[in-house]
Amino acid sequence: MSDGLNMSRRIRRTPYTDCVEKLGVRGFSVVNHMLLPKAFQPTIEEDYWHLRENVQIWDVSCQRQVEITGIDAAKLVQLMTPRDISKCSIGQCMYVPIIDTDAGLINDPVLLKLNEDHFWLSIADSDVLLYAKGLAIGKGFDVFVDEPDVFPLAVQGPKAEKLLIQVFGSDIGNIGFFKFGWINFFGTKQLIARSGYSRQGGFEIYLKGSHLGRKLWDTIWDAGKELNISPGCPNLIERIEGGLFSYGNEMTRANNPLEIGLEKYCTLDGSIEFIGREKLQKISKTGIKKQIKGVLFDGDPCPICAIPWPVTVGEQKVGAITSAIWSPRLKSNIGLSMVDRNFWHQGQQVVVHLPKGIISNGKIVDTPFKG
Amino acid sequence: MSDGLNMSRRIRRTPYTDCVEKLGVRGFSVVNHMLLPKAFQPTIEEDYWHLRENVQIWDVSCQRQVEITGIDAAKLVQLMTPRDISKCSIGQCMYVPIIDTDAGLINDPVLLKLNEDHFWLSIADSDVLLYAKGLAIGKGFDVFVDEPDVFPLAVQGPKAEKLLIQVFGSDIGNIGFFKFGWINFFGTKQLIARSGYSRQGGFEIYLKGSHLGRKLWDTIWDAGKELNISPGCPNLIERIEGGLFSYGNEMTRANNPLEIGLEKYCTLDGSIEFIGREKLQKISKTGIKKQIKGVLFDGDPCPICAIPWPVTVGEQKVGAITSAIWSPRLKSNIGLSMVDRNFWHQGQQVVVHLPKGIISNGKIVDTPFKG
Repeated sequence: MSDGLNMSRRIRRTPYTDCVEKLGVRGFSVVNHMLLPKAFQPTIEEDYWHLRENVQIWDVSCQRQVEITGIDAAKLVQLMTPRDISKCSIGQCMYVPIIDTDAGLINDPVLLKLNEDHFWLSIADSDVLLYAKGLAIGKGFDVFVDEPDVFPLAVQGPKAEKLLIQVFGSDIGNIGFFKFGWINFFGTKQLIARSGYSRQGGFEIYLKGSHLGRKLWDTIWDAGKELNISPGCPNLIERIEGGLFSYGNEMTRANNPLEIGLEKYCTLDGSIEFIGREKLQKISKTGIKKQIKGVLFDGDPCPICAIPWPVTVGEQKVGAITSAIWSPRLKSNIGLSMVDRNFWHQGQQVVVHLPKGIISNGKIVDTPFKG
Repeated sequence: MSDGLNMSRRIRRTPYTDCVEKLGVRGFSVVNHMLLPKAFQPTIEEDYWHLRENVQIWDVSCQRQVEITGIDAAKLVQLMTPRDISKCSIGQCMYVPIIDTDAGLINDPVLLKLNEDHFWLSIADSDVLLYAKGLAIGKGFDVFVDEPDVFPLAVQGPKAEKLLIQVFGSDIGNIGFFKFGWINFFGTKQLIARSGYSRQGGFEIYLKGSHLGRKLWDTIWDAGKELNISPGCPNLIERIEGGLFSYGNEMTRANNPLEIGLEKYCTLDGSIEFIGREKLQKISKTGIKKQIKGVLFDGDPCPICAIPWPVTVGEQKVGAITSAIWSPRLKSNIGLSMVDRNFWHQGQQVVVHLPKGIISNGKIVDTPFKG
């Protein structure tokens, strides 16, 4: 399902939008009031195979940064997440679910610790800046919360490291997973992290200075030609197979982190203070009623899931698929669904109710999808 | 400029999306993570003339409601806006700019006062819910902040009143401008306000209960056929002519309410307490450096403005157009621009720099555009 997207200043372009248009982008999504390119290769399948075998350059500027600085910066960040951020070193990235007093997910950003009193939250699709500002004002914290002029560019795929070593030098190879370092680029110092929204490995360059966007894109693009570089974007097949969940799709404020399988990121022993702790402790004690699972289901390649598809066992609705696609590698439809506790075990037979009355037999599996 | 929009659950459909698709919607925008239909008639001009002469039905569900209830509800709402909300009666709508400590605009919603401790903020495109939640948590306020199952449907145009009296009875005629009343609809009580994002008059029905969406749309649609009803949406020609500004386009957090001409909604005498008061008082004392103005400019009908177009006088950049379109009625291009203080007087000659090196002569005018 794809329709026209009407443009306006409010749907912000990125420093790389001209580049992706030149390369024939075929569609966009809108994330954080900003364009996210969504299709390049003739089909999403070709894009998928290319990503698994080569290297791609992605405009992920929509991963906006919420910059928090000042004396109370760490205090504010800790208040927003159940994860113990005192364990985060300078130069480290940390996946930090953000929740409200009901333990409902507000966002699931990556935290970058630039200094003891200097953090970036690299956010999914919701205005974390406003939540952070509200909290800081309400608490009277001594912090500065803003959106810096930073536009992440991802380089993903098995050949990403080789390419970036070629462009920026061998130090790139020493950056550990979910760690970041710095590169020199035309007289500026730029942050580069080994991270990204795929399971194929790669890096994200957090470019500061939108005027350098074109130059950065072209530098990587030109060097990447001999490695068969292609423009790309988060690939729906790859992300579902890999069990990468998407805020707004698999999780909303109606879900708590335990339902998303994030218990390992939740410190519930009382050693840290954060918003929603009491509620999350209570949920943990009682046990969650549903959890996100994979669903393998048969039939023709399924359409895009824009409205959740009911998942049933007998007469009972036990879940709803929120993202789905045909996997050419697993030769099956694959989907992600919240599934009720009594039905979430591996191998549970279910029925998936697609649009237009189409019914499909499926079974519950763990993510990432195996095979 | 219009490209493909890739759909997903995150880009939420509304209770009326099926209806607008059936009626041939040709494009969408995304506001508050939700679809806003953006084109129906073959051209935006035809849509414009139709709106000025008939009645239209608009899916404006993306005007999400932030519901604030509880003992401290009024206190929280007042803290967010420089407008004195103690002047707002139950049953009244009030346009309330929301600002941060730097007096930067966070949103410009319409406040609906349902009861002394019960408010809806009908928002433009930013997550006011997260700001309100952050503030409430930080301040320890006794409030409940949530997004209710409410989906506004607008009925706009000179024949809107006639149509709705026909459907819901003559009491509709007694609802004053920016006031609201209640209608009965299939055993439910629904809020209806005389308001909407056009200057052609009309109403907005704040439908509670998404399951009733189809029924409400069809009821109005069927009754409207003899009045030449058409599906529609905020019309760019009409809104620019009418001087209706758009959050994210004409104003962002980089602007204060005085620059948007909202001084009449700012109580700066110290009688009320709100976030950003000190900063706003200071700005008011010094005087603003720029203000939003209209620009009439010549040449061929201009394209969509997705990147602000510089406005110059001599060598000096004095502003930037953020929304623009050809007005078939004024037989001129019309645009909205922040303009520097020394150049903002009526009749100031300026040069507008459109894409592809196109240059146009223009002049500054007040909004709404006259003629």
